Parts: sequence; C-alpha cells; structure tokens
Amino acid sequence: MAGVDRERSAERIERDIETLAGSQFTRSSEAIRRYAYTPEYRATLDYFTAALRELGFDVSEDPVGTLVARNRPAGEKVFGVGSHCDSNRNGGKYDGTMGVVTALEVCRLNAELGHDLPLQLISFLEEEGSGFGQMLLGSRIMLQRVTEEELRDTFRALDDGRPLWDCAADAGYEPERWRESIHVLDDLSGWIEMHIEQARVLQDTGNRIGVVTAIAGYVHADIVVEGRSDHAGATPMDFRLDAGVVAAECILELERLARAAGKGTVGTVGEIEFEPSLINVVPGRARFSLDVRGTDEGSYRGVAAEIAAFAEQAAARRGMTAEYRQRQSLDPTPMDERIVHALETAARETGEPFIPMPSGAAHDTMCVADRVPSAMVFVPCTDGISHSPLEDAKPADAALAAEIILNAIRALQ
Amino acid sequence: MAGVDRERSAERIERDIETLAGSQFTRSSEAIRRYAYTPEYRATLDYFTAALRELGFDVSEDPVGTLVARNRPAGEKVFGVGSHCDSNRNGGKYDGTMGVVTALEVCRLNAELGHDLPLQLISFLEEEGSGFGQMLLGSRIMLQRVTEEELRDTFRALDDGRPLWDCAADAGYEPERWRESIHVLDDLSGWIEMHIEQARVLQDTGNRIGVVTAIAGYVHADIVVEGRSDHAGATPMDFRLDAGVVAAECILELERLARAAGKGTVGTVGEIEFEPSLINVVPGRARFSLDVRGTDEGSYRGVAAEIAAFAEQAAARRGMTAEYRQRQSLDPTPMDERIVHALETAARETGEPFIPMPSGAAHDTMCVADRVPSAMVFVPCTDGISHSPLEDAKPADAALAAEIILNAIRALQ
Repeated sequence: MAGVDRERSAERIERDIETLAGSQFTRSSEAIRRYAYTPEYRATLDYFTAALRELGFDVSEDPVGTLVARNRPAGEKVFGVGSHCDSNRNGGKYDGTMGVVTALEVCRLNAELGHDLPLQLISFLEEEGSGFGQMLLGSRIMLQRVTEEELRDTFRALDDGRPLWDCAADAGYEPERWRESIHVLDDLSGWIEMHIEQARVLQDTGNRIGVVTAIAGYVHADIVVEGRSDHAGATPMDFRLDAGVVAAECILELERLARAAGKGTVGTVGEIEFEPSLINVVPGRARFSLDVRGTDEGSYRGVAAEIAAFAEQAAARRGMTAEYRQRQSLDPTPMDERIVHALETAARETGEPFIPMPSGAAHDTMCVADRVPSAMVFVPCTDGISHSPLEDAKPADAALAAEIILNAIRALQ
Repeated sequence: MAGVDRERSAERIERDIETLAGSQFTRSSEAIRRYAYTPEYRATLDYFTAALRELGFDVSEDPVGTLVARNRPAGEKVFGVGSHCDSNRNGGKYDGTMGVVTALEVCRLNAELGHDLPLQLISFLEEEGSGFGQMLLGSRIMLQRVTEEELRDTFRALDDGRPLWDCAADAGYEPERWRESIHVLDDLSGWIEMHIEQARVLQDTGNRIGVVTAIAGYVHADIVVEGRSDHAGATPMDFRLDAGVVAAECILELERLARAAGKGTVGTVGEIEFEPSLINVVPGRARFSLDVRGTDEGSYRGVAAEIAAFAEQAAARRGMTAEYRQRQSLDPTPMDERIVHALETAARETGEPFIPMPSGAAHDTMCVADRVPSAMVFVPCTDGISHSPLEDAKPADAALAAEIILNAIRALQ
C-alpha cells in the first residue's frame, strides 16, 4: 500500500464538494445548476485551476472551454484522470463534480506520496447538455463528432437561443480553433474517469466500488400500433381492434426478451400514448418507446429486432398492424482490459468490496475511448438517485476510488 | 302487414335528415353542431313542430325546452316515441336526429294508414352535452336527477360560462318550473326510442334491426401503480420496480376477465399515463382508466372487483403497490319484456334480419325507463362510426324501424 490516509482524502473531497455546492457555484438555490459560459461555471473552473496550480500543474482550457491540467510538458506521456463539473439543471452535488474532485485528489496524493506520476486532469465541457441541450458536448467536440455548422448555428443556448459559437466567443474562447481540441488527447497513455453509479446495484449488493468493464450501447425506437377506435360500451370484445392490448403484450414480451438475453441486457418502455385517450373509447392507436441497452451488441440489438418482429406478429394476430421506428442507436464501448485489470488488482488490495460491472449510462469516456485506452470507476449513490438535488454519495467511497485509481496508474507505468 | 310503403317512408326520412343537415340547422360547416338555446337548435325544433302540427298534433315544450307533441288531450293514455335532436359538437346527421325523424315517420304512417293510435313524440334537450357538458340533461331534469343548485349555478354554457338557468330564461323558457317536467311522462303507457347503434355489430352480423334488451350499466375507475423511477440504462432488470409492466399485465388481465365473464360484458383501458414519461427512465408510476360495462350487473361489477384485486396482487408480486379508485358507476337498465316481445314479433313479420342485443351506450331511455315501460330499436351505422361527420346510416333501415315500431305499438294497444 502506498500509505494513503483515506480519512484525510475523504475530508478533502468532502470540503471540495461542499464548497462547490455554495451559492457562487450554482444558479439555483434549490439544486446544483451549473453550465457552460456562466459565472458559476467559470467560478468552478477557477476553483480547480487554483487547486491544480498549487500542485504545480500547468492549467489551460481547450478552444471551447474544456479544462486541461498537466504536470509534464507537452510531448511527454501522461495518464488522464477526470470527468465533468457541469450539472443537470435540477442537479445534485455529485454527478460529474465528484469525479473531477476525486481526480484532483489523485493529483494531490501523487504529490504528497512523492510518486511523481505523469498526470493530466480533464474536466469536460457540457456533459449534461444543460447549456445547449447537447449531451457529451465537450468530448464530442474533442473527438470531432460535431460539424462546424452545428457549432456555428444548430447548437443554441437554452437560455436565450444564441448559437454556441457566439456564446463561446463572448466567454473569451476561440471556437474557430475547435478542431485543435483533439490534441488534448495526444499525450495520453490511458484514461480513468470516476463517476457516481446513477443506479442502485452497488448499494443493493453492498459494494463500495464498481470497476466498469464496458459502457452499454443502445437502441432507441418507437413502436406504433394501428387498431381502430370504437365505443367502449357498444363494441363487444370480439369486434375490437384494441391497439392498447397489443402494446401491453409488447411491454411484457420486452421484459421477457431482455431477461432471456442476459449479459446485462435491459429493455424499457418509458413512454406510452393511447389515442384518442378517452376512458370510453377503445384505443385506436398506441405508441410506446423502446430503450434497449447492453454491453453485448448482439444481445441488445437482437432484443430490439425480436421485439419489432413480435409487435408485428402480435398486431397481425389481432388484425392490426405495428410499425417499428428506430430513433437512434449507439455501439457499446468496451473498456481497456489492461486498465480494468489494474483497477481490479488495486481494488482487491484495499480489501474493500468491489464488483466488475457495465455502465448503462453514457459518459465522456465513450468518446475518449475512441483514441485512448480507457476505463471507469463507479461509487455508490444513495438509492440510485441522480439528476436530482436529492443525489447523495459518500466522500469516503470517493477517497477509496482515488486510492485505487492512483495505485492502478502506478501499476500501469 | 299494415301496408307500409317502405320506399316512401325512406324518402321522407332521407328528406328530413338532409334538410336538418342544412346550414340553418348546424353551427359548423364541417359537421353537425347543434345544441340547446341556439338559433340552429330552435330552427330544428320549429321544423319538427310544423311537421307534427300538420299531422294534427298538439306541440309544446317542457319548462327547459324538451319538445313534446301528442295527438290526444292531456289525461288520455298515449304511447311515447322519440329521441333527441341535439348533436355532438363534431357530430353527424344521424345520432339522435334520425330517431326523432323516425318517430315523426311513425306519426305520419299512423295518420296515413288510419290507425289513429294515441301517440306522444318527445325530443329530449341536450342528450349529448354539447351545450353545458352534461349528458342526458333533458331526461335527467325530467326525472329530477339534478338539483336546482346545479341548474342555477353548476351547469354552465361551454360557450360563455353562463348558468343554464339564465340561458334557458333568455331563450323564453321557465326554468323555475323545471320540476313540472316530470309530468311529460304522466300519460305514457310505453316508450320506444330508435337510435343508430354506434357500433358495428349489426353491420358485421348482417342485421338491419337490433331490438335492445337492456342498456348496459358501467363502472368507471382508475388504477394507479406506484413503482420507482430508475435509469433505464443503469438499472438491471432484477433491480426494477417498473410500474408500466404491472399496467401491461392488468390490460391483458382485464381483457381475459371480460371475455370470461361473458353475457356481453366488456372491459376497456382507454387512457394510460406513465411517469416521468421519458424514453430512458423506468416508469415510476402508471395510471390507467377502466371502463367495464354490461347488462348483467353481477358480471361487470365482478370484473371490476377482480381487476382491482388482480392489480394489487400483480403489483405486490413485484414489490409495488396498486390502488383502485372508482370514478362512478351506474346500474343497467333492463328493457320492458312486453314491449321487447312486441318489437321482436313485428320485426320477424317484416322478414328482414334482426337480433336482440344490449346497448353499450347510454341513452335518454335509461331515464324514461324509471317511470315508463320502455324499449329501444337500433339500426346499423357504417363501420360503427358515430360522433363524427363521417357518421352514416341508411334511411331504408330507419323506415323499416318505423314500420316495426308502429306495428309493435298497435299490438300493444
């Protein structure tokens, strides 16, 4: 063991978290509300900048505002740590910010313990989309997964409708140099992001650490069933084309298919609409959404294909039609095996309970992993609550994560 | 046979229907839109008044505007025929109006054929609720199923929010005498209402006439399932409390229960809502409506009780709760056996296909039957479409109904 004082780490992490929950760092008194190009976001970047400079880091920002700090000159290999420090509009203290704070603690421990590991901390711009309605925006810009047209015109501030381009320029950035953002990743030999889990698996299984093995891919789609609206009183059961009943069959079948697929595949119907939506009219049309995810692409794409086929057949059996309409889909992102192994070894050495697990939620690491061997570490959040002022997580778990990340990076050198 | 010229009857009925679809009788050029205390409704009453006076009927209106016409002085027994001539706001030419027109044709045939049967035609005020949002209003006022407070204050015009009381007074009625409306029924020895079926049973079974044996009662309720909202990607299938899945189980179980109950029992989930209704969040709450109907009270009330119990158990099996909340319920209205028998006999004598059947929809006859032996006759409407400008029905079927009603009344004298 590297002689980490976990209690002191937890105290520092708690102090950072609580400081950044103060009124100068959030635009709401009811929640954490922090997003790009606002005074509160600027104050947050300044807080990290000061703390990192104190540790001797060179701190800068990329052409749109992603924070980058490193303790080695450009051209030398460094290991990346970080997350994002913007929040949901009705957010909590931990989503994103606790990851950056924990990365900062890794940098502190690295100095205190005299490891002198080459490190680069990144705090990505606009992961939550609170400023411009675009999720993972900083990392997508870095990976060139946007167009200049989008930055100049399509992506507009939720607050006043002005283009991102103008907002960034007004904040002192150089959006016309956005393509240079990719060079932030040039010297990275690896990347580890810590994040709260945003679900209840760690809590409910009694684990303090989750070592992410892959970030799930997904299929988002809708199924529309066309039946016939009839009088609910005057139409006997055998004369109906009830689109709602087909929707119900699909909801249960999706649950069955996701369970049968295994490998962490999940399937959810989160939205449903009947038309005309009157108590005394048989639904003539039903629309419901599909969210099918998993880390095994064959499994979740298979479930999506099977539920589409099932819906058609279930509708046809009753004399109706069903149409599957895909909204979007994304491939899964496997984590780097070598880094995952180093994290598991470091976790095991702490003697604390941990599990390997998938991430069902999306993270900036999905973009980073395109170019850099990457991994993630999860810590529990109470009852899985996230994107809410009720969000809660333990600084002691983050301190444990900092120790594990530090030791994994040491082992990887 | 009484020598009815069905073709001539059909022509007269068609002429009446088409006349009353003219611009002076509807407030919309896209649909039939006709409701109490409007010039278009007044013109419609005037049309019937003139036609009935031509047949020697004494025509008057009750204290709120229900039209009453009889060919015998007060105190002498008469047999009642009629329906309503107001429409849905986006209505068709046939719902209600065809029943009054057919009753008028019964009165015409009665004179032409020299039967001189004692008749009373009634056209009830505001069956559809287009004026004041209150269904069966004229017949409920007649049966004293409203309070003076409701008439004076609660029931207000959808157009301008003024109380029914003031609207009726402005139209020249005497709402303060509303309790006298009940006397309209004093001399009735029986009552037959003709109406379009508003479903597709007659069309799909190839019958031209339905003799109604009972008007269905119903239970209207909601079931609310409380689960837990979780991240749709990050929450494994075994960690979910998905309220939507319980709702789906209930929809299928309601269908099964209604079929199993038989006796024409029907069950419908017409409304459904998931919360928070986001594609990537497991539904934490689901609300859905229940409409359970039938003419056998034990059967449909049994289905309502069973689905309430099933929902509780289905939710509990998954660690959730479900609550059943009744909105309202109504008893079924059996039709008078003697009149039903007379109608069936008269229908059989025409040689045309007919069936006995329940009415799943509500009608003014539900109120009349409280005081007077009552029955109803249905004619087909195309594809069961009603409450729509697309509503369609055949004058020839209405002519057949007029002949059957006339002969049934003759037989009942």
